[in-house]
Amino acid sequence: MRNCYSQSNQNLIAKAESENVDLVWDRYKAMQPQCGYGEQGICCRICIKGPCRIDPFGEGPQEGICGASADTIVARNLIRRIASGAASHSLHGKEIAMTLLEMAEKQAEGKETTYNINDLDKLKTIAEEQGIETENISNTELIRKVAMNALEDYTRIDNKPCNWLENRVTSTRLEKLSELGVAASNIETSVTDIMSRTHVGTDADPINLLLAGLKGSMADYTGMQISTNLSDALFGAPEPVISEANLGVINKDAVNIAVHGHNPLLSEIIVQVADEMNQQAVDAGARDGINIVGVCCTGNEVLLRRGVPLAANYLSQELAILTGALEAMVVDVQCIMPSVSKVSSCYHTNLYTTMPDAKIPGATHLELDSEKAFENAREIITDAINAFSKRDLNKVDIPAEKNKVIAGFSKEAVVELLTEISPDDPLKPLIDNIVEGNIKGIALFAGCNNVKVEQDRNYQEIAKKLLADNILVFATGCAAGAFAKNSLMNSQATEEYAGEKLKAVLRFLGEEAGLNAPLPPVFHLGSCVDNSRAVDLATALANQLDLDLDQLPVVASAPELMSEKAVAIGTWAAGLGLPVHVGVDLPVTGSKLVTETLTESLKDLVGGYFFIEKDFELAAEKLINIIEDKRDKLGLDKVEEVI
Amino acid sequence: MRNCYSQSNQNLIAKAESENVDLVWDRYKAMQPQCGYGEQGICCRICIKGPCRIDPFGEGPQEGICGASADTIVARNLIRRIASGAASHSLHGKEIAMTLLEMAEKQAEGKETTYNINDLDKLKTIAEEQGIETENISNTELIRKVAMNALEDYTRIDNKPCNWLENRVTSTRLEKLSELGVAASNIETSVTDIMSRTHVGTDADPINLLLAGLKGSMADYTGMQISTNLSDALFGAPEPVISEANLGVINKDAVNIAVHGHNPLLSEIIVQVADEMNQQAVDAGARDGINIVGVCCTGNEVLLRRGVPLAANYLSQELAILTGALEAMVVDVQCIMPSVSKVSSCYHTNLYTTMPDAKIPGATHLELDSEKAFENAREIITDAINAFSKRDLNKVDIPAEKNKVIAGFSKEAVVELLTEISPDDPLKPLIDNIVEGNIKGIALFAGCNNVKVEQDRNYQEIAKKLLADNILVFATGCAAGAFAKNSLMNSQATEEYAGEKLKAVLRFLGEEAGLNAPLPPVFHLGSCVDNSRAVDLATALANQLDLDLDQLPVVASAPELMSEKAVAIGTWAAGLGLPVHVGVDLPVTGSKLVTETLTESLKDLVGGYFFIEKDFELAAEKLINIIEDKRDKLGLDKVEEVI
Repeated sequence: MRNCYSQSNQNLIAKAESENVDLVWDRYKAMQPQCGYGEQGICCRICIKGPCRIDPFGEGPQEGICGASADTIVARNLIRRIASGAASHSLHGKEIAMTLLEMAEKQAEGKETTYNINDLDKLKTIAEEQGIETENISNTELIRKVAMNALEDYTRIDNKPCNWLENRVTSTRLEKLSELGVAASNIETSVTDIMSRTHVGTDADPINLLLAGLKGSMADYTGMQISTNLSDALFGAPEPVISEANLGVINKDAVNIAVHGHNPLLSEIIVQVADEMNQQAVDAGARDGINIVGVCCTGNEVLLRRGVPLAANYLSQELAILTGALEAMVVDVQCIMPSVSKVSSCYHTNLYTTMPDAKIPGATHLELDSEKAFENAREIITDAINAFSKRDLNKVDIPAEKNKVIAGFSKEAVVELLTEISPDDPLKPLIDNIVEGNIKGIALFAGCNNVKVEQDRNYQEIAKKLLADNILVFATGCAAGAFAKNSLMNSQATEEYAGEKLKAVLRFLGEEAGLNAPLPPVFHLGSCVDNSRAVDLATALANQLDLDLDQLPVVASAPELMSEKAVAIGTWAAGLGLPVHVGVDLPVTGSKLVTETLTESLKDLVGGYFFIEKDFELAAEKLINIIEDKRDKLGLDKVEEVI
Repeated sequence: MRNCYSQSNQNLIAKAESENVDLVWDRYKAMQPQCGYGEQGICCRICIKGPCRIDPFGEGPQEGICGASADTIVARNLIRRIASGAASHSLHGKEIAMTLLEMAEKQAEGKETTYNINDLDKLKTIAEEQGIETENISNTELIRKVAMNALEDYTRIDNKPCNWLENRVTSTRLEKLSELGVAASNIETSVTDIMSRTHVGTDADPINLLLAGLKGSMADYTGMQISTNLSDALFGAPEPVISEANLGVINKDAVNIAVHGHNPLLSEIIVQVADEMNQQAVDAGARDGINIVGVCCTGNEVLLRRGVPLAANYLSQELAILTGALEAMVVDVQCIMPSVSKVSSCYHTNLYTTMPDAKIPGATHLELDSEKAFENAREIITDAINAFSKRDLNKVDIPAEKNKVIAGFSKEAVVELLTEISPDDPLKPLIDNIVEGNIKGIALFAGCNNVKVEQDRNYQEIAKKLLADNILVFATGCAAGAFAKNSLMNSQATEEYAGEKLKAVLRFLGEEAGLNAPLPPVFHLGSCVDNSRAVDLATALANQLDLDLDQLPVVASAPELMSEKAVAIGTWAAGLGLPVHVGVDLPVTGSKLVTETLTESLKDLVGGYFFIEKDFELAAEKLINIIEDKRDKLGLDKVEEVI
């Protein structure tokens, strides 16, 4: 098996070998065979009577020392993952809400602020959606109220559903979630509840545990909605933007600085300061000045809002350094391999950590979420400019591969585009095209890279089949990275891969958008927190049609699910009614009950469910069948069938 | 090795074997050998690239697939344990705070409430300590304010230290914790932060991770302070009470109902309803009516406040059922082996779960924290009375062993006793006796039972050596259970085990208390959340002497540490300045850095630290040496030494 679908990446991997640099694929290989107990979720390390392991062959222990069954153990392990995912996404959201609150407080005192509202329209829209009065109120006060409204979801003590959950799903869905007791009312309480009930000797009922996990996933969803929307207010709701992706965006004639992680608060400062300092880089001999490139979701954030090119998604983060042409990598939080420290040390690359809760041994720590944010950013960039001359030219090897990307498909951008066509009822063209089968359905690709499969491959293979069948594709996070890097987010891809009906729609929309070319067949919605955008759009469709999400011909797929955040996302997606394809084994196979609950019983409960399919051909087939089945149930293709 | 120190328990274990009932010791044996990676903390199951394992012999992988080192992996695993411990204790406290809040709200509306304040003095003391005005305020409003003051520690968004942390430590300590950035300001945020920063690719710095764990442990401490103090206000601060302990408290002529878990909210209702229904049990043929017995910390709660006898601590919970004479076991949260379901099904015992977040397959679920609390309690007790006639007399085997216990040593009780002797300066007699060496020091025994060692043995062996050396012993939780069951909490034990100087003090105090006998040499402070009582007393001493906790001749010991709560407790105890003995291996040995940080570097940072010693003789010796060293540093025994 090749490690990556991309030949140029493959070449860099060979370079690493010759330079004795260990990469994620090497470490994966060295880790074989992986522990089968862990893989199946039947290893319990919760108390210190253990560790315990259930024998999957039924010969050894069938219970932990406390008497916990495989079902209990698997469910506990699974929901702790959800707790971590929800914690991660929601602290991201909280950080942005706190930034707004501090901004409002400083503004009220007439002080200067590090950040400012870039998108007042979005702020007002949010306020209206959250039931905050927008008339007769100063901007400062509006910012404060929106921030407090978000923070309420982290502090509520009663059982009212989270503000950012209750009006971000259909009313039917909210009712269903409330009936099940899983409409989270406080994000941090939901996380804490999971950690408490999974303590030794507390909740032993796998179904009760899974319900707590489902609630935790709704907390995750809430945190993501807050993250996306407040980021939009702060930095602007994305609009279609043209850029490039893949390692070829690293420029040998520029001071290259990679921003990596998830939180736009920090990368926005780097981008801003880099603009100011560009001439210094030129003066230092870098003909093209400073070239900021993105990695992972921080990359997606600045790609969508600033057009910054995307160098890598998760699995190729080390490769960006391996080009030998990266002067600095600046990381914030989540999905940063600690190995980047060791890999950087093999080159002239300066590695910086910037958040108090994410340090890496060997990296320089300069906090960007502090009073000294700009000063620290200047220091980082000055050092990068100085490092430019230290490149070992013998080690520089930048792959040529880069592809054009049209990104920035926020809900706002899509609605704005549709408004051009149908001012009174913007969603009508979309609905009409779905009804008529020009768009057979929508598939949302989300999630990570996972070293257990060939990088980026299944994303592309599955998506190409769906596109050929006139299914429109949305993508976020590392899924979006996979499509961006591999030329599936441009007009050419539409010509090449979209079915005739879908192609016609995308051509028409592209013309309306003034592109003089089709829209791309895969819409880049943003970073992984921006899966919320897909739900917003689907919810708008559902509301207009008076349907719930599980009735729409919409599916989700995470072919390379890897992180705990992705587990949380998959869970809420299922909880909101979506069939969720996963392309790797989930660590739940040690419990038939948990596996069946996720893949079958959940369907009766909430409409959505998980299904595991590692084969891309079969995965595509199943996703298409599900969409067709949903269309059938809506009576959409009846006429055709009769014919 | 025998499983338990108690011969009568040993006999019941033999009975289980003959009746083919699997017990915790059987499951432990079946689980051998346990996974060495897990035992050393070097197994990572955080993301789905894994599971990863570090080779402790240095031959296989030294990094996870992401590049995380053993240090990072061990630190992440450890602090997730702390997060769970903190979550557990603090949700317990929150539940009680919410109960107070609801009570106040209902009272304000003139409605009847399930609970009422039993100890208005304590409520007022709490209010004063928390800076709440107690004059010119109705009781209802006082209840509400105290509740809100506690709930603020679950909802705060700024960085002010928790209300229940900042005035429950010495001011020097608070300063030290604040400097380190570990003075938790919001309990649930601290838990969420740990879950977020341990997500794949976030915090990789072991020291930064451990500091977050220390902060999480301070959140744990805060939650415990809230739990203890609000429970006292609600149900009464414990006063010395005489009762009995060990399985012999199960009465063959009574309807026996065990209350098990941790939360007094529920057991208090059972105790109350049992009183009302006693005659019905007598009418049903149970000569001695209803006999409520306690298990684990729920047992400790009702022992201290209601004199309810204690049947078992953690490891013997199954044995209580195995007596064949238990009509019902009513469990709430934490440390309830799921196996009690299977064991109950071998007898006539009804098993009830009562909390929404702690269900067990096979148990009947009747919620006691609801509007129907009393109705459900009556149903449970009625069923128990009906079950009395269903006992299989051939299977009944109640060990004779039970021992007298004097329990109830809350800080209030101790101060009240000392006030009799020294009304103007109650702590003076205690301080004088410590200074004079009549009390050489104080050792707090806390924590669990762990099947890896002989049940209860090390508690007793270590304590006997300390007592002989005139060190006074405090105990909580399953440690207290171990001492209570094994006759170390009565006057006879003082005569038998205390050194002459300590004996004289306890004799004098016993006379003053009107016991006509010495106080016990081991003070039962309460359940595991009541470790807060020990700190309160130590902090009062420290404040009066203008010292910090790490200077006092006070040590802590957890010979059978097992649960994640115990890991959290041990961590805050060290963080508050105490040397903490642990009698089993902590799952950190896979990282030299983490091990050294816990056992050495922590000392320089906060004064307290961990030390592992499995041999009870050596453990006792080391604890004594530490106390002597602390006395030396205070210059206490200089004169003696010269002589």
